[in-house]
Amino acid sequence: MQTLTLQPVLYVLGLLVSVLGAAMVVPGVADLAAGDVDWIGFFVGAGVTTLVGGLLVLTNRTRDLSLTLRQAFLLTALGWIGTAAFSAVPFFFSRLDLSYTDAFFEAISGLTTTGSTILTGLDTAPPGILVWRSVLQWLGGIGIIVMAIVLLPFLRVGGMQLFRMESSDRSEKAVAKVGHLGLLIVVTYISMTVACGVLYALAGMTPFEAINHAMTTVSTGGYSTSDASMGHWQSPAIHWIGTVFMVAGAVPFVLYLKMARNGVRPLFTDAQVGAFLAFLALVSVFLAGWLVIVDKVPAFEALTLAAFNVTSVVTTTGYATADYTLWGAFAVAAFFALTFVGGCTGSTAGGIKIFRFQVSWRLFSVHLRRLQSPHAVVPRVYNDAPITDEVAVSVLLFFFVYVGTVGSIALLLGLLGLDWVTAISGAATAVSNVGPGLGAIIGPAGNFATLPDAAKWLLSAGMLLGRLEFFTVLVLLSPRFWKG
Amino acid sequence: MQTLTLQPVLYVLGLLVSVLGAAMVVPGVADLAAGDVDWIGFFVGAGVTTLVGGLLVLTNRTRDLSLTLRQAFLLTALGWIGTAAFSAVPFFFSRLDLSYTDAFFEAISGLTTTGSTILTGLDTAPPGILVWRSVLQWLGGIGIIVMAIVLLPFLRVGGMQLFRMESSDRSEKAVAKVGHLGLLIVVTYISMTVACGVLYALAGMTPFEAINHAMTTVSTGGYSTSDASMGHWQSPAIHWIGTVFMVAGAVPFVLYLKMARNGVRPLFTDAQVGAFLAFLALVSVFLAGWLVIVDKVPAFEALTLAAFNVTSVVTTTGYATADYTLWGAFAVAAFFALTFVGGCTGSTAGGIKIFRFQVSWRLFSVHLRRLQSPHAVVPRVYNDAPITDEVAVSVLLFFFVYVGTVGSIALLLGLLGLDWVTAISGAATAVSNVGPGLGAIIGPAGNFATLPDAAKWLLSAGMLLGRLEFFTVLVLLSPRFWKG
Repeated sequence: MQTLTLQPVLYVLGLLVSVLGAAMVVPGVADLAAGDVDWIGFFVGAGVTTLVGGLLVLTNRTRDLSLTLRQAFLLTALGWIGTAAFSAVPFFFSRLDLSYTDAFFEAISGLTTTGSTILTGLDTAPPGILVWRSVLQWLGGIGIIVMAIVLLPFLRVGGMQLFRMESSDRSEKAVAKVGHLGLLIVVTYISMTVACGVLYALAGMTPFEAINHAMTTVSTGGYSTSDASMGHWQSPAIHWIGTVFMVAGAVPFVLYLKMARNGVRPLFTDAQVGAFLAFLALVSVFLAGWLVIVDKVPAFEALTLAAFNVTSVVTTTGYATADYTLWGAFAVAAFFALTFVGGCTGSTAGGIKIFRFQVSWRLFSVHLRRLQSPHAVVPRVYNDAPITDEVAVSVLLFFFVYVGTVGSIALLLGLLGLDWVTAISGAATAVSNVGPGLGAIIGPAGNFATLPDAAKWLLSAGMLLGRLEFFTVLVLLSPRFWKG
Repeated sequence: MQTLTLQPVLYVLGLLVSVLGAAMVVPGVADLAAGDVDWIGFFVGAGVTTLVGGLLVLTNRTRDLSLTLRQAFLLTALGWIGTAAFSAVPFFFSRLDLSYTDAFFEAISGLTTTGSTILTGLDTAPPGILVWRSVLQWLGGIGIIVMAIVLLPFLRVGGMQLFRMESSDRSEKAVAKVGHLGLLIVVTYISMTVACGVLYALAGMTPFEAINHAMTTVSTGGYSTSDASMGHWQSPAIHWIGTVFMVAGAVPFVLYLKMARNGVRPLFTDAQVGAFLAFLALVSVFLAGWLVIVDKVPAFEALTLAAFNVTSVVTTTGYATADYTLWGAFAVAAFFALTFVGGCTGSTAGGIKIFRFQVSWRLFSVHLRRLQSPHAVVPRVYNDAPITDEVAVSVLLFFFVYVGTVGSIALLLGLLGLDWVTAISGAATAVSNVGPGLGAIIGPAGNFATLPDAAKWLLSAGMLLGRLEFFTVLVLLSPRFWKG
């Protein structure tokens, strides 16, 4: 193995950090416009961040940007950790008087589009802070889409090689193609955000609220401008707009490009999307029925409530319009289970993701068949692609690592003194990038502020591991990686 | 595929049922000796059961006992369900006035060596009932060992093909060898039970208590003659004897035969046993330290408490000497996690089992290495056997199905109105064949009596699925199995 050259890694990292620094100007301007003194923090942050980013770019200029496998792994982890570290700066310097731990937690929860928050009093918070939270989720959302389409299939993480396109090779033509694809996806993402914001405004949000929520809806992030989350707006129209755009953010973005070419057909031929929509509809209707029968909620209200909150958890957004943990024993068990599901791959959603359930289910049924007829030849195919043994092991190992990570974090949280429900649901919601957990402390009506610092760092690590699909980070922990 | 001939299946089933019927005489005699009127139930049960078993044997006599794969699957499931159904009869006819649901729950919890109970007032219960519970666990224990050694590797369930010996083929010589192996194991099992009973008696139990607990210790079953379980005896000697024999019951029984030939060496060269003992020691010492520091328990008492209760849960026995859910938040999380671990394969223990964690961990580290150097050739070996792709998928699918089954049962229990903690810990403890769950209702100080009937049937199904390593039962649910 060659020695690991850091130059191209630091160069791209510098670019990312610089973009982040520039983005800090946006909330700064918002605070200036509102006459809020917090603008200083954002401009200081922007200065520091752009300076560091610029220095990295200048000192590591290189023409050869074709990354080796190890460089790509390193860049992925460093990119997310580095930007999170700098994203925390404006929170730290704001007049909210946060510790760096809290600032980092809020920043990484934003960038990973998790949406767990340590802030209270959002309804009266400085506008810059609110805008910065939304911007972080929005940037994190597009970041993960690009990563899932361009980088992960090439890194063969968690069965993502199933989604390898020509774009995953590294010839010059392919790189140009990826660039074009990336641009189209960014345009799609922006258009979707604008559409969502306009509809929110038409449905009754103020322009400020509409812009913020549009950014945190399409990124399936879940930060809100109100402590009551989306429950602040008692408007079915707003909730249904939210439901639709959370789903839109959790669908593979490549699909939109295919639809632009071929009409709505791909929506029905893609195995992942079909199952995802069917699952959401089924669970929503079932829970709505439960609300109607057990809690005597009127039918339309029940469907609105169920559809919004189910979609919010499954797409790993994390808004809430009600404290669904009060819907009874079954609802608690159901929402805990839903925490793990996740959206489609190649979207802004986190979680285990639909395609892994489908691949595992296929493996399960083929396995059952082979048990009874060992010599039968049973094809293993998913969405027209063969499920090779390598893909099978990758996908199944992903489950193993997922459950193992949630379990380990939960145990460590228990060691820190957190009660069992907070520990296990907190670990699950962090790793799945959902947002709220269960129980009185971190449930949909609660907040992460009172957790001990060590717990916040643990949960931050969980968010990062989940967002980067584990292996991207874990590879760096093996000594062999650094030996070269 | 050929049509499925039931004759040899029903013949062996008849033999099993007949043996079970004969076994009912034992508790009957105990009741007669104690002058308890309950003896009638046992003799009626023995009569009915032996009659049905005998009829099955007589009407299905066949010389050709070499089973096809499908017959073996069917026999495995029918064998356990059939014997459980008949084992319930004496409970049903006893003067405890149980419903058939309760009787069946107690019976299958016994046969699968789970140890969850619906009975209270054990300390004053008729002796026959207590003996019958112990006998069921004892028979279930030897049943599962023989099945794990002879049948499962041949059925290739959950990666068990790793433990295929010559004995798993079906030539006449091999069958004779299996017979000899089986006999040696039965002798080992009986000797171990006797040794355990004698030690219990020397340490202060009455002969009746000693016999019963010996049977439920070596079978890692966990039924006790007292509502306070092993906490009834405040004797460190008894608790340490229990700890040692629970471990002995959770170690591969083939190992004892090897030790008879080669001395203690196999104990240290077997990868599974070494890891199992190290894990138990580590967790016990850690929890003992926790008890000393946090709860100010004296050191030796803390170690006794921790070692006994940790061993009880990990070996899936399910005795308790204390309500460990009162040891604080961390203990609850830890004991929940321990519920899943399980003992070694080829023993009486349930759970996921040590070798599957080891194989998965090996797959994980090989996978990490291949991610960074895709062309490296990394050998995948476990205990000198190669981990083929088939084994890899089997083992990893086992985790997937395990978590899926626990999750599904927990959700259904939630639908029945059980609170989240009872639902999820109940599902886990049933599938892992441990015994107690968490929470006020089914925790180590609680009891399964108050659960709704539907919940008892669900948990019974969970115990059976876990005991038979899922696939053995699930194969029967596919329509293809019956089409022939």
